[in-house]
Amino acid sequence: MVTASDGEAVLDAAAARATVDLLGVLAYGELSAFDRLAEDARTAPSISGRAALAKMAAAEMGHFKLLEEHLAGLGVSVEDAMAPFIGPLDSYHASTAPRSWLESLVKVYLGDGLAADFYREIGGWLPGPTGELVQQVLADTGHSAFAEREVHAACESHRQVRDRLALWGRRLLGEAVTQAQHIVAERDELAEFIVSGSGDLSGIAALLKRLQSNHGKRMAKLGLN
Amino acid sequence: MVTASDGEAVLDAAAARATVDLLGVLAYGELSAFDRLAEDARTAPSISGRAALAKMAAAEMGHFKLLEEHLAGLGVSVEDAMAPFIGPLDSYHASTAPRSWLESLVKVYLGDGLAADFYREIGGWLPGPTGELVQQVLADTGHSAFAEREVHAACESHRQVRDRLALWGRRLLGEAVTQAQHIVAERDELAEFIVSGSGDLSGIAALLKRLQSNHGKRMAKLGLN
Repeated sequence: MVTASDGEAVLDAAAARATVDLLGVLAYGELSAFDRLAEDARTAPSISGRAALAKMAAAEMGHFKLLEEHLAGLGVSVEDAMAPFIGPLDSYHASTAPRSWLESLVKVYLGDGLAADFYREIGGWLPGPTGELVQQVLADTGHSAFAEREVHAACESHRQVRDRLALWGRRLLGEAVTQAQHIVAERDELAEFIVSGSGDLSGIAALLKRLQSNHGKRMAKLGLN
Repeated sequence: MVTASDGEAVLDAAAARATVDLLGVLAYGELSAFDRLAEDARTAPSISGRAALAKMAAAEMGHFKLLEEHLAGLGVSVEDAMAPFIGPLDSYHASTAPRSWLESLVKVYLGDGLAADFYREIGGWLPGPTGELVQQVLADTGHSAFAEREVHAACESHRQVRDRLALWGRRLLGEAVTQAQHIVAERDELAEFIVSGSGDLSGIAALLKRLQSNHGKRMAKLGLN
């Protein structure tokens, strides 16, 4: 017989699994971001750009370590927590491989912004210390100002460059939504957590609309509108 | 007329230039190490190896930032200080591009060890805070234990692997000495600083012998003897 407290325990266990999932996808996101920034550092057109990107990559690993420690405190290895998300995140990156330094800057800028918006909403539904950790690891690593400056400068003088980057920016949103849907379809507790956190299905629609609208604002900040 | 204090000022200026050179080559060494470790992270055979190497890469950038700040305090940008050393260090890395994960681990292990030995000797001749900074940025980023474990395991079961890595390790020393000679030949103040620091030419010979002997000990620690 299932009693009320059994019911609560089941709910708590589901919430705990959703929390581990969220921290896991965040951790793999940081490790992937490290990779991309390190690769961009290598192809940076100047030594100061190279150093700037390498420092940002290092900052991502600082966030990664915080997540790893927090997961260890929950009794879960970061490797186990990341495992389910390696496939979908790698697919996203494979399907959106930048063909130039500017495409790469735009991808990191828009991708980080989108991820930060999403996690910030979700983070609000998590218990105290975990929610605070999520806010902390979303702190901008200094990439934004750098990307805005570089992309603006490139677009000002070349209309064609701007138009192509604007298409690229719109495509990135589509690919991100596709991969996010794959993840949610495979992780029942995570899906449940998001539905109950946003209230209901119309809450999810409103969340998606906010993400889309902020994506548009970031495109505008890069001069891609 | 050159007075005694003019003479001292000239010496001080030369020592200051040698100091900037040393910090510059160290800084570019850290940035290069970041690059190599980040690349190795990408090709690591496991997700935990990938995360471990990415964290080491991040630690190199922590050292880089310390050097950058110290140079700024001396009124020199890190880009300017690094500039003369980009060519020789890139040549060294191009001429010793690893063809496998194990070659890469051996290269980082032996290269870092050799560089740390060298800078530790030189650091002792530098004025207080600068000398202390040099010791600090030479702190092992955790790579050593990792490399010893991985290389030992690979060599134990395959004699041929061990023999090939042993040849590789000896070649690395030769290439490093060649590039170091190029650098010293082009930087008069640095050459002067090393000669006066080690006492005389026989002091330099003794220094080289110590570096060689420690390189051999590190080869043994990897099981490559």
